[in-house]
Amino acid sequence: MFNPDGRLFQVEYAKEAVRKGATSIGMVVKNGIIFVAHKNINDPLAVPSTIQKVFRVDTHIGATYSGMVSDGLHVINMARSASQSHRLVFDDVKSIEALSKEISSYMMQATQYGGMRPYAVSLLIGGIDNVPRLFEIEPGASFLGYKADAIGTGKKVASEVLIKDYKDNMELDEGMALGVKIIKKIHEGKLTAENVDIGYVMDGSSFGMYNRDEINALL
Amino acid sequence: MFNPDGRLFQVEYAKEAVRKGATSIGMVVKNGIIFVAHKNINDPLAVPSTIQKVFRVDTHIGATYSGMVSDGLHVINMARSASQSHRLVFDDVKSIEALSKEISSYMMQATQYGGMRPYAVSLLIGGIDNVPRLFEIEPGASFLGYKADAIGTGKKVASEVLIKDYKDNMELDEGMALGVKIIKKIHEGKLTAENVDIGYVMDGSSFGMYNRDEINALL
Amino acid sequence: MFNPDGRLFQVEYAKEAVRKGATSIGMVVKNGIIFVAHKNINDPLAVPSTIQKVFRVDTHIGATYSGMVSDGLHVINMARSASQSHRLVFDDVKSIEALSKEISSYMMQATQYGGMRPYAVSLLIGGIDNVPRLFEIEPGASFLGYKADAIGTGKKVASEVLIKDYKDNMELDEGMALGVKIIKKIHEGKLTAENVDIGYVMDGSSFGMYNRDEINALL
Amino acid sequence: MFNPDGRLFQVEYAKEAVRKGATSIGMVVKNGIIFVAHKNINDPLAVPSTIQKVFRVDTHIGATYSGMVSDGLHVINMARSASQSHRLVFDDVKSIEALSKEISSYMMQATQYGGMRPYAVSLLIGGIDNVPRLFEIEPGASFLGYKADAIGTGKKVASEVLIKDYKDNMELDEGMALGVKIIKKIHEGKLTAENVDIGYVMDGSSFGMYNRDEINALL
Amino acid sequence: MFNPDGRLFQVEYAKEAVRKGATSIGMVVKNGIIFVAHKNINDPLAVPSTIQKVFRVDTHIGATYSGMVSDGLHVINMARSASQSHRLVFDDVKSIEALSKEISSYMMQATQYGGMRPYAVSLLIGGIDNVPRLFEIEPGASFLGYKADAIGTGKKVASEVLIKDYKDNMELDEGMALGVKIIKKIHEGKLTAENVDIGYVMDGSSFGMYNRDEINALL
Amino acid sequence: MFNPDGRLFQVEYAKEAVRKGATSIGMVVKNGIIFVAHKNINDPLAVPSTIQKVFRVDTHIGATYSGMVSDGLHVINMARSASQSHRLVFDDVKSIEALSKEISSYMMQATQYGGMRPYAVSLLIGGIDNVPRLFEIEPGASFLGYKADAIGTGKKVASEVLIKDYKDNMELDEGMALGVKIIKKIHEGKLTAENVDIGYVMDGSSFGMYNRDEINALL
Amino acid sequence: MFNPDGRLFQVEYAKEAVRKGATSIGMVVKNGIIFVAHKNINDPLAVPSTIQKVFRVDTHIGATYSGMVSDGLHVINMARSASQSHRLVFDDVKSIEALSKEISSYMMQATQYGGMRPYAVSLLIGGIDNVPRLFEIEPGASFLGYKADAIGTGKKVASEVLIKDYKDNMELDEGMALGVKIIKKIHEGKLTAENVDIGYVMDGSSFGMYNRDEINALL
Repeated sequence: MFNPDGRLFQVEYAKEAVRKGATSIGMVVKNGIIFVAHKNINDPLAVPSTIQKVFRVDTHIGATYSGMVSDGLHVINMARSASQSHRLVFDDVKSIEALSKEISSYMMQATQYGGMRPYAVSLLIGGIDNVPRLFEIEPGASFLGYKADAIGTGKKVASEVLIKDYKDNMELDEGMALGVKIIKKIHEGKLTAENVDIGYVMDGSSFGMYNRDEINALL
Repeated sequence: MFNPDGRLFQVEYAKEAVRKGATSIGMVVKNGIIFVAHKNINDPLAVPSTIQKVFRVDTHIGATYSGMVSDGLHVINMARSASQSHRLVFDDVKSIEALSKEISSYMMQATQYGGMRPYAVSLLIGGIDNVPRLFEIEPGASFLGYKADAIGTGKKVASEVLIKDYKDNMELDEGMALGVKIIKKIHEGKLTAENVDIGYVMDGSSFGMYNRDEINALL
Repeated sequence: MFNPDGRLFQVEYAKEAVRKGATSIGMVVKNGIIFVAHKNINDPLAVPSTIQKVFRVDTHIGATYSGMVSDGLHVINMARSASQSHRLVFDDVKSIEALSKEISSYMMQATQYGGMRPYAVSLLIGGIDNVPRLFEIEPGASFLGYKADAIGTGKKVASEVLIKDYKDNMELDEGMALGVKIIKKIHEGKLTAENVDIGYVMDGSSFGMYNRDEINALL
Repeated sequence: MFNPDGRLFQVEYAKEAVRKGATSIGMVVKNGIIFVAHKNINDPLAVPSTIQKVFRVDTHIGATYSGMVSDGLHVINMARSASQSHRLVFDDVKSIEALSKEISSYMMQATQYGGMRPYAVSLLIGGIDNVPRLFEIEPGASFLGYKADAIGTGKKVASEVLIKDYKDNMELDEGMALGVKIIKKIHEGKLTAENVDIGYVMDGSSFGMYNRDEINALL
Repeated sequence: MFNPDGRLFQVEYAKEAVRKGATSIGMVVKNGIIFVAHKNINDPLAVPSTIQKVFRVDTHIGATYSGMVSDGLHVINMARSASQSHRLVFDDVKSIEALSKEISSYMMQATQYGGMRPYAVSLLIGGIDNVPRLFEIEPGASFLGYKADAIGTGKKVASEVLIKDYKDNMELDEGMALGVKIIKKIHEGKLTAENVDIGYVMDGSSFGMYNRDEINALL
Repeated sequence: MFNPDGRLFQVEYAKEAVRKGATSIGMVVKNGIIFVAHKNINDPLAVPSTIQKVFRVDTHIGATYSGMVSDGLHVINMARSASQSHRLVFDDVKSIEALSKEISSYMMQATQYGGMRPYAVSLLIGGIDNVPRLFEIEPGASFLGYKADAIGTGKKVASEVLIKDYKDNMELDEGMALGVKIIKKIHEGKLTAENVDIGYVMDGSSFGMYNRDEINALL
Repeated sequence: MFNPDGRLFQVEYAKEAVRKGATSIGMVVKNGIIFVAHKNINDPLAVPSTIQKVFRVDTHIGATYSGMVSDGLHVINMARSASQSHRLVFDDVKSIEALSKEISSYMMQATQYGGMRPYAVSLLIGGIDNVPRLFEIEPGASFLGYKADAIGTGKKVASEVLIKDYKDNMELDEGMALGVKIIKKIHEGKLTAENVDIGYVMDGSSFGMYNRDEINALL
């Protein structure tokens, strides 16, 4: 399963699937985390609102993914179960870091055994552990924390803009505006309220999603 | 199982099987969902009524598929069981979206493990969750909501017509007429009441199928 | 397991085995179903009566197959068990359509998992569900109802004759005479009472087979 | 496992192993069944009597095989168990036909699953079900009744002689003489009492084997 | 696993391993069985007595093998267990023939399933069932009785000598002298008491082995 | 799984993955063990503190790894469980050597069975068993004790420096300064407090990590 | 798994791994067994004492191995368990020969099943069964007793010296001096007390290892 270069072929190929997925962005902002995710839906008869790119994982945790839709939902569901299970067993919320590690460990299994394929998704998972935390987990199951990060087809462009424009302690609105600006840049301005999911977790309030009007105000 | 391009070979090939299946169309109409599905049966001694393309999944949910017959029936049966099981456990109907996700999750398993092949079917599943909802699930297990959608051999032609002629809040009869028109166009007019299944779910009434006379009135 | 064309290689090859099997014919006649099946046995020392091509599945259901002998017997046995099991559980007879679907579902499993091969048989299964019903199930597990149908090596010739000569509401004897005529045509007249199985299910009477004298009267 | 021609490669190859096995002959005679089987042993220090080619399966059933020795013994043992098991469960003898079908079904499993090979044996199984019955089962698990039949390396020669010389209602001795004549012809006369097994089942008496003197009287 | 010629590749290759094993000889003598087996050990620091080629299987049964050492010990152990188990269950000794068949059946399993390899040993197993019996079992699991037989690298030479010089009802000493003469011929005279195992089973006495002095007397 | 050279291909490839991992260094110092590990993170928006390279395994045991992130965490977790389990069963701490052997045994399984891949990590594990002990375990599961050792991409450079500059009984601070010097040399001076983990186990005190200020004091 | 030559590819390759392992020597001396094993460790910072090449298996049994470190430890552990288990079950010590056979049988399994690889180790196992016994077991699981034997990279050189210089009934010290002389010859004199393990089992005393001073006295 390793190539002579020490890489797992199937993991490299699964990453290629992620590179083709619609772009998702996550940012740490002042007292919170935001997610801005593109839905790459061009069919005029499709209902973009039926495809979800930003998810509530727990009251204090949100997530977004890029890659294969069914794998993304599968891993998000796994994350929700893990978070709920922690509440039941410990009567306490699970930390973002602990959850990221558990997702990483779950996705790692799929890279170790023959007869399975790796999950073709990268995840951004974030929320509030006293302070805001944001993690990326990729098909090879490694994970890393970020202040701001992008996954999917626009990762390169998004990262360049984030490096230039992202600032610590941005306000929630500033962050969302930056996220929307990046998605617009990637898609050359063609962005409607229907083709973007915007979610957030703020210290003191639970996970929320912007509605169409709130998104339109940002476009 | 991934190719270097990040695609699952077997899923791509299963999609090809779907592309060769008889065309099925689903539409959201005013207060309801309609399904118009072609049965590509040319043998004069075959009994087209024995092959079903539109199915009652639950009182408020219908479905149609394109692709391998046996896989289609298998997945429809799985959907029926999931819907009934939800009723038993929660004493409530399962939402169209939740059912679509469960089918997607079921079909996703068949793409993840060696020793299995993906299901060679696309499904249109629709019904009433307060408002009418229509979803397509494909062999790779991704799903998406549509206002109007076609699967199978005539997908391209059907989509073009739907984009041009489909309107929001069409009456049930208008929608069915449009569906029949599309199937006729794909097959150059050669359509009989026996070679088409027409089903619907309307708000306030449960899933129903048109009988031969009702279909003939539309031809 | 799919080829790039969306077909299952092993299913296509199993169909080839069916195409080489001795011809079987089924017809809906007035108030009944008839089966006429050839036994392609040329060895003068063989005892054709030891090979069965038409089977009683239940009192109201008969069947015939073309293809690999051992697979045919296996699937017929499966059908018998399913029918008996239905009687035990529901205290009622199983409908022809329900049984056909169950056989299809059983044969479909053999196309989905690695480490198994598809069944190399096509079946004609028929009987009385208030009205006479006749279904064909093929190695890919799809099934379809017919008024009259042929499987096996003579399928093409048989279908041409059936399309020309088969009529709705034929009498039992007419149907059998037509079936025998077709088998004779396929084998250029060389047919003896020993090389053909003739069975029937009539409304009001259970499954029966013609004896040698009855068959001779038809030759 | 199927080739494009609809054949199972491994079954075809197993048949080749049967074609290389020592010849066995079975015949229906008046009120009985006889088996004459060659033991192809040329080593002057071998003890041909230690290799058995004709077997008692039950009091009323005998058998012989051609092909791989260990597979032959395995299937014969399976047949003995099936026959005894029937006696225990039903307190009645198992019919030759039912036993042949059960062996066929057992051998068919070995053709259906990966990770196994087919049995490289053909069997002749015969005995008295009111009337004498004789069946051949081959590596592909199909079975057929015969009045007289040969398997193994001399099958072609044996069949030609049987077609010419075999008569219905031959006396036991006539049948055995014919069988011995055929084996002698195949091996150009070089046959000793040690290189042939002769067994029989007669109506009213249970399975028996000829001793060396009885065989010598036939040479 | 069969080649087109009807042979099992792995069995043919395992036989090649046997052909390279040190020679073992078995003979039926007057009222007994003898085994003479070579130990092909040239390392002057090895202790040939630590490698055993002739084994006591039961009081009345001995054995020798040629081929892979670890496989040989494994199968000998299996034989011992089978013989003891028979004693426990039936309170009687197991016949040589029954034990040979059980070993054959055990070794046959290793030729039938994927994921295993055949045993790379041939066995000579012999003893007293009222009369002396000697059987050879080879990697393909077929077995045959012999009056005198050789396995391993010197099989061809040994068989030629045995055919010429072996006589029925040889005395024990004559047989052993013949066996030793053959081993010497194969190895051009270079034989010491340490490089040969000599064992016997005589009617009325249990399995015994010659000690160094007894062997030296034969050299 | 072995190549003709007696190596396990997958283990060699997994070692290549380790050779690409960020450098980790371990040293025995006076009365203690220190770990200095690089975090090869260049993305300005990443949060290096979220990736951990030096771990507390037990109060008296620390560890660091180089190679695949998810494999590293998996094996570290395995080590923690093994150490806790020992405490529970024996009511005593597990020795460094015993734990290293258990990790080696665990990683060895992954090299022995098909259907798994080796772990793509090397570990340095160290602590106090009366005296300080430091072990390296590599993907092939062999382990060896060291006074000072490096793993990962800078292993060669680090080893040269260690051989030259490492001394027995260095003070804790000296050792850490040497470790930092080496990491700096490997990365040409570009090292910040965020890109390095420094941990230690001292006799009489449990495992500890340096904070940013303490690390900065060393840069 | 066999090649046409009757060899197991994976076993041959595993033997190659043994041929590259550090040399181990075992000798029968007067009333005892000695083991002298090289540790091929050149890294000046490694701690050779952490790698063990000579092991106490039971009070009266010692062992050494050459080949893959993790496999060596695994098999040594297996041997220890087998010896302890024998004590528990039979309340008596296990003989060297019985233990060697059990190790052989264990290692043989790894050569018989697909999905496993053979163990890449040769073992020398020795001790006192009334008299001193020494056995070698190799990756193919065959075993043989020796008066003196060497395994690993220096086997050829060591064997030549042993054949020339080894004498029966050497004193313990003579044997150890000879072993050390051989290791020195293989490594051209570069041998320190740290790079060699010397162990012994003497009649009347249990397994012991030389300490550094005792080894230095021999260098």
